[in-house]
Amino acid sequence: MKQPNEIIIDALELSNWDREFVHLLQKGGVTCVHACCGLWENARETLHNIGQWHRFFQENDDLIMQVFQGSDILKAKQEGKIGVILGTQNTSALEDELSFVSVFNQLGLKVMQLTYNNQNLIGSSCYEERDSGLSRYGKLVVQEMNRVGMVVDLSHVGEQTSLDAIAVSERPVAITHANPNWIYPTKRNKSPEVLRALKDNGGVLGLCAYPHLLNGKDTTLEEFCSMIIRTVDFMGIDQVGLGTDLTLNMSTDFLHWMRMGRWTHDVDYGAGSKENPSWPEWPSWFRTPKDFPNIAKGLMEQGMTGEDVSKVMGGNWLRFFTEGFKDKKEAEKCAYPM
Amino acid sequence: MKQPNEIIIDALELSNWDREFVHLLQKGGVTCVHACCGLWENARETLHNIGQWHRFFQENDDLIMQVFQGSDILKAKQEGKIGVILGTQNTSALEDELSFVSVFNQLGLKVMQLTYNNQNLIGSSCYEERDSGLSRYGKLVVQEMNRVGMVVDLSHVGEQTSLDAIAVSERPVAITHANPNWIYPTKRNKSPEVLRALKDNGGVLGLCAYPHLLNGKDTTLEEFCSMIIRTVDFMGIDQVGLGTDLTLNMSTDFLHWMRMGRWTHDVDYGAGSKENPSWPEWPSWFRTPKDFPNIAKGLMEQGMTGEDVSKVMGGNWLRFFTEGFKDKKEAEKCAYPM
Repeated sequence: MKQPNEIIIDALELSNWDREFVHLLQKGGVTCVHACCGLWENARETLHNIGQWHRFFQENDDLIMQVFQGSDILKAKQEGKIGVILGTQNTSALEDELSFVSVFNQLGLKVMQLTYNNQNLIGSSCYEERDSGLSRYGKLVVQEMNRVGMVVDLSHVGEQTSLDAIAVSERPVAITHANPNWIYPTKRNKSPEVLRALKDNGGVLGLCAYPHLLNGKDTTLEEFCSMIIRTVDFMGIDQVGLGTDLTLNMSTDFLHWMRMGRWTHDVDYGAGSKENPSWPEWPSWFRTPKDFPNIAKGLMEQGMTGEDVSKVMGGNWLRFFTEGFKDKKEAEKCAYPM
Repeated sequence: MKQPNEIIIDALELSNWDREFVHLLQKGGVTCVHACCGLWENARETLHNIGQWHRFFQENDDLIMQVFQGSDILKAKQEGKIGVILGTQNTSALEDELSFVSVFNQLGLKVMQLTYNNQNLIGSSCYEERDSGLSRYGKLVVQEMNRVGMVVDLSHVGEQTSLDAIAVSERPVAITHANPNWIYPTKRNKSPEVLRALKDNGGVLGLCAYPHLLNGKDTTLEEFCSMIIRTVDFMGIDQVGLGTDLTLNMSTDFLHWMRMGRWTHDVDYGAGSKENPSWPEWPSWFRTPKDFPNIAKGLMEQGMTGEDVSKVMGGNWLRFFTEGFKDKKEAEKCAYPM
């Protein structure tokens, strides 16, 4: 049922990478993953994370390659490698320095989520009580990201900051990993207003298998695929992809870092809860990247055409990243056909 | 007219300190100055600034001493030295690390303004278009500042963040340098709502001679003293002091750093304007710290009693800092009589 030449792109994974994990990606037919390279880290710490990735790329250059532009995704496919897009789930790496947008872009951080779970210099997160939208610095950062071809990601970003960022951005933006909040109501999932603005902006939404953003581990494949189809109905077939938020091989220490950073001495549960404080258990149909074909199969079983399935599994992200990673001048020269 | 034993405290100066400047403070009868030790600096850079102050304290220990608690102000007075309270006009030194409150408190940063001119992890500034108030991290920081006895300063802080901080703070807070906005309307000056909340909180407001927060250099001493008296009428005699924001010996480079940090590549004018872009010219009656007695004289000429003048010139800040610099347990043990 799975087409062997299909391109599968996962727009966000948080997993801890080792060779075994890469083999699981290969078994799942995955072409490219946007890998999380920072949550709360400042500039110096982000350089460390990038350095660790350099070592991992070097040691595994038979299996993986870093993606700087869309053609690298196709090259990875041709060479049978996994393409890795590095990005951060925060703008903390930029600190207060506008010039750091182009510096980190040059290092290949091609996606930056404007905020992680807390307010920062740029905007507010979905977990803050109030959200005053993009700050003055935030507007300059979005414009500079537009200029250099670094993709704006709004996944954990608050409602008003998301709407502002879409309004300020002259280029399509991404929500790499979130679901519609009218299907699964959580603070992390997205309102119709934000998704409508994303649609009008030409952006892409990556639907997310993270159990806390669904109905937990008992969410069935049918339910997940039904959400995909309902979201396609709302957003259009060209603007929906996957961003699983897969968290394989992750420690409890990392969970605490992810949720609490250094900003609180008490436990913050993020998308979890007091009753459900740990790494979530994943649904049976998506335990490792080997399971990507299950999603394609599930979509076809609900009547989606092969062409549409290909768009959702990776075609839309391929188009979006190809266009989005170009610097603005280049993008204006030769716009990728929508 | 000036009482020789009077205590004069300036709750904020940005000046570039050298021995000559200290001599001017002595000539003005100044007992204690809260000196700005950071605007946009991160933790590492703030350590550098503190280190520079260590060297300056060492080289000038015949003239100045660092103030860690109220009794140090009295000690400075007795020894004929200038007491220096170090503080920052931002919480950027804390970065995202709650524990840094007690670390920097131990180093003697006894006052921190929650935001400088931009939104940060904690709240919004008076120059942002919108202000969503204290963030989740911001609340924890205010509580921790309360615990260790680091004074919360709201001078450049936005309206909602100021109101939130006053509501969250279990101890009196300061506005070290700002004026009522109904007397001199600028974004940097304070609304009746904020000053009423400050009054109810038991805080102190430092009235500011920075020309951009008045009517420029032509503001007369009579007008400045009239503002003080009107503010005392509004706030009560125990809650008004001085925070001149004096900027002696400052370079144009520093002006650019002050206004633009690293967050913008374009000029931001802060309290200045395109028409008035430079360091402001100070009014004739307040050009150097030697001129402090002019203010006391001006107040008495408008009929303020000697006792009240002493409160405004330094008595209120002495009481406030004595109480505010105690850690919470100590403050609860022996509250300074209001």
